[in-house]
Amino acid sequence: MNVTKLVCSACGVTFAPGKVYNLCATCGMPLFVLYDLEAAGRTLTKEALRTREANMWRYREVLPVENPAENIVCLGEGWTPLMPMPRLGAELGMANLYIKDEGQNPTGSFKARGMTAAVSMAKELGIKKLAVPSAGNAAGAMAAYAARAGLEAHIFMPQDTPQANVIECREMGAQVTLIDGLITDCGAEVARRKEAEGWFDVSTLKEPYRIEGKKTLGYELAEQLDWELPDALFYPTGGGTGLIGMWKAFDEMEELGWIGSHRPRIYSVQAEGCAPIVRAFEAGQTHAGEFPNAHTKASGLRVPKAIGDFIMLEAIRKSGGGAVAVSDNAMIKAVREVGQLEGLFLAPEGAACYAAMVDLLEAGQIGEDERVVIFNTGTGLKYLECFGED
Amino acid sequence: MNVTKLVCSACGVTFAPGKVYNLCATCGMPLFVLYDLEAAGRTLTKEALRTREANMWRYREVLPVENPAENIVCLGEGWTPLMPMPRLGAELGMANLYIKDEGQNPTGSFKARGMTAAVSMAKELGIKKLAVPSAGNAAGAMAAYAARAGLEAHIFMPQDTPQANVIECREMGAQVTLIDGLITDCGAEVARRKEAEGWFDVSTLKEPYRIEGKKTLGYELAEQLDWELPDALFYPTGGGTGLIGMWKAFDEMEELGWIGSHRPRIYSVQAEGCAPIVRAFEAGQTHAGEFPNAHTKASGLRVPKAIGDFIMLEAIRKSGGGAVAVSDNAMIKAVREVGQLEGLFLAPEGAACYAAMVDLLEAGQIGEDERVVIFNTGTGLKYLECFGED
Ligand SMILES: Cc1ncc(COP(=O)(O)O)c(C=O)c1O
Ligand SMILES: Cc1ncc(COP(=O)(O)O)c(C=O)c1O
Ligand SMILES: [Zn+2]
Ligand SMILES: [Zn+2]
Repeated sequence: MNVTKLVCSACGVTFAPGKVYNLCATCGMPLFVLYDLEAAGRTLTKEALRTREANMWRYREVLPVENPAENIVCLGEGWTPLMPMPRLGAELGMANLYIKDEGQNPTGSFKARGMTAAVSMAKELGIKKLAVPSAGNAAGAMAAYAARAGLEAHIFMPQDTPQANVIECREMGAQVTLIDGLITDCGAEVARRKEAEGWFDVSTLKEPYRIEGKKTLGYELAEQLDWELPDALFYPTGGGTGLIGMWKAFDEMEELGWIGSHRPRIYSVQAEGCAPIVRAFEAGQTHAGEFPNAHTKASGLRVPKAIGDFIMLEAIRKSGGGAVAVSDNAMIKAVREVGQLEGLFLAPEGAACYAAMVDLLEAGQIGEDERVVIFNTGTGLKYLECFGED
Repeated sequence: MNVTKLVCSACGVTFAPGKVYNLCATCGMPLFVLYDLEAAGRTLTKEALRTREANMWRYREVLPVENPAENIVCLGEGWTPLMPMPRLGAELGMANLYIKDEGQNPTGSFKARGMTAAVSMAKELGIKKLAVPSAGNAAGAMAAYAARAGLEAHIFMPQDTPQANVIECREMGAQVTLIDGLITDCGAEVARRKEAEGWFDVSTLKEPYRIEGKKTLGYELAEQLDWELPDALFYPTGGGTGLIGMWKAFDEMEELGWIGSHRPRIYSVQAEGCAPIVRAFEAGQTHAGEFPNAHTKASGLRVPKAIGDFIMLEAIRKSGGGAVAVSDNAMIKAVREVGQLEGLFLAPEGAACYAAMVDLLEAGQIGEDERVVIFNTGTGLKYLECFGED
């Protein structure tokens, strides 16, 4: 509807909309979608939003699908609750602590946002076969949206991905291959085979639309807080689509005249066993090296190398935020802490954010009166392996 | 707000609101909540609903909490998507097939609706300790809402309840007891101990508010179909709260002037291994006997005896619907059938409804042009044990 062009995040070369793209043809870096926001803002108004559908397609004017009636592949994703946490807050002395519960999405994780956008665009562009390397939740989401769209889904996951992810993919009719390795090895396998097989590669940031879906996290955050962004947000970071997407959403909303130039401090949370962004942030680097020997129970954080590292690091720094690593034990403990007090069954990735926030609160980097949002990116139900018998 | 009294579903004796009740003090049968619907309808209008919150408390004027700001214990439950099923429909020759996906509720099942209402009322009435016998999902929901409310949760489930249910309860800090028996045995254990322990019994239909929460299924159905109820609906039946709740909602909506006197045909779906309602329906009985040797993978349907059987049987008959049993194999097959074509990972209970609907379509009891709604009451993610390795 309002897409004007695509632009390379690194070299700035632009591309015409309406065609199939993966990475920038010039430099091999991720592409971003640009919109005519003046046109978008004519129908997408704060007032109009008051009666829009309770899913992320309420923001359709700033999403890439040209023909929404025909091509949106929807399972009800997005518009998840942003909930105050009064009992946790009381324990911590915090008055304005929130969790956004992405576990209530279809397929039980926020990966639904990216995949509804990517699969809708694949459908619109006439693509028939999709392939993705995944830590687990992106796989489940792609399997679901591909099924609903009638497209083939070819999925590559590490052998030790949680059972829930493997089973959901199979029940959605996807072709599942388990790889003895990490998500990077899965990505290499897709890259090796895609041409011969005629697959379109839906890897994180290697096509331009998953990030568009994920950016709706930022729009919802603003709308649900009555257009006042929080002081700080905690995001569990693997490939970083959600973080980069929100950063993009904030800029778009400023251009739409919906918010000012203030930005929340963005804290990227990773696992001690796989913390490439934390390491690069602390070392003052603009890019992150591959993290050796990556391991963590938070399977979504087991991403040793992310193509969008430089975009994340820039956003984190510009926002005045930071990057924090959390141990697996701390995450698993945090699941029960949040569960017992607030009744939310967090994914380890979401729990990591809670644990990181408590660390920074104790260190004085987060103030007790600040408005803080934690992203729980999935439901704990998908991680039964992580929880003991008592 | 608008509760006028409670009335016994069997003997008609009435009770004043604002007090703690389980079953009718006169005859031991379930109590229903009655409202001043004229008063409710003054602020709860179709127009007002257009800008209400995207959860079931949008209908707060016809829900029992007196002081919503203080006492509603909310995790974002309800207002789940009602989705057209174009690809399944095409295969079956049906133009108007829908699934309401209750798997997107907090705790992954529609039990969240009943428990948000029951726990909110417990909080409002000053109750501190809750106990429940459960097939699994009600337990998870109670654990979550009790945690959020700061109440004790004592949970009794059969030993072979799916792992997901056991783990979610423990992570929410509930006291879990596994019983070598069925839900009826769990209920007996709660009954035996509750007085000494000071527990409030939250068993299905043995307190008056879970059904009030569940009835919002009926309100949402009407609102999401633009106030025209479907021709037929398929409901997976254990204790029957949702079925009875919807039937009540239809009457309330008629009194509110929102719908006419037409009712959907209600089809109660059960498992072949536990089909007390089907058996009673076919035998023309008004009450159902206890089903011997109850067994099924659809743990939510493993309810051999329901206190509200007579209410269900009357509603099914009055609606012109029926009762259908489905084999476990057919359910599990249906999960993949729906998954492959529409990308929804159904619980076996929801899949049973789909299988039953296909049976009745083939038998000519459902017409191809009819508007049909299937309730998927939970996410398949909670039933990993049911699905094989490929
Ligand atoms: C639950 C969960 N949280 C966080 C992440 C990391 O997400 P992103 O790739 O947007 O950084 C993942 C990725 O798999 C995930 O599944
Ligand atoms: C997924 C699921 N579906 C259906 C049922 C039956 O619900 P009801 O007690 O309202 O008949 C249950 C009950 O445990 C359930 O968990
Ligand atoms: Zn470039
Ligand atoms: Zn009575």
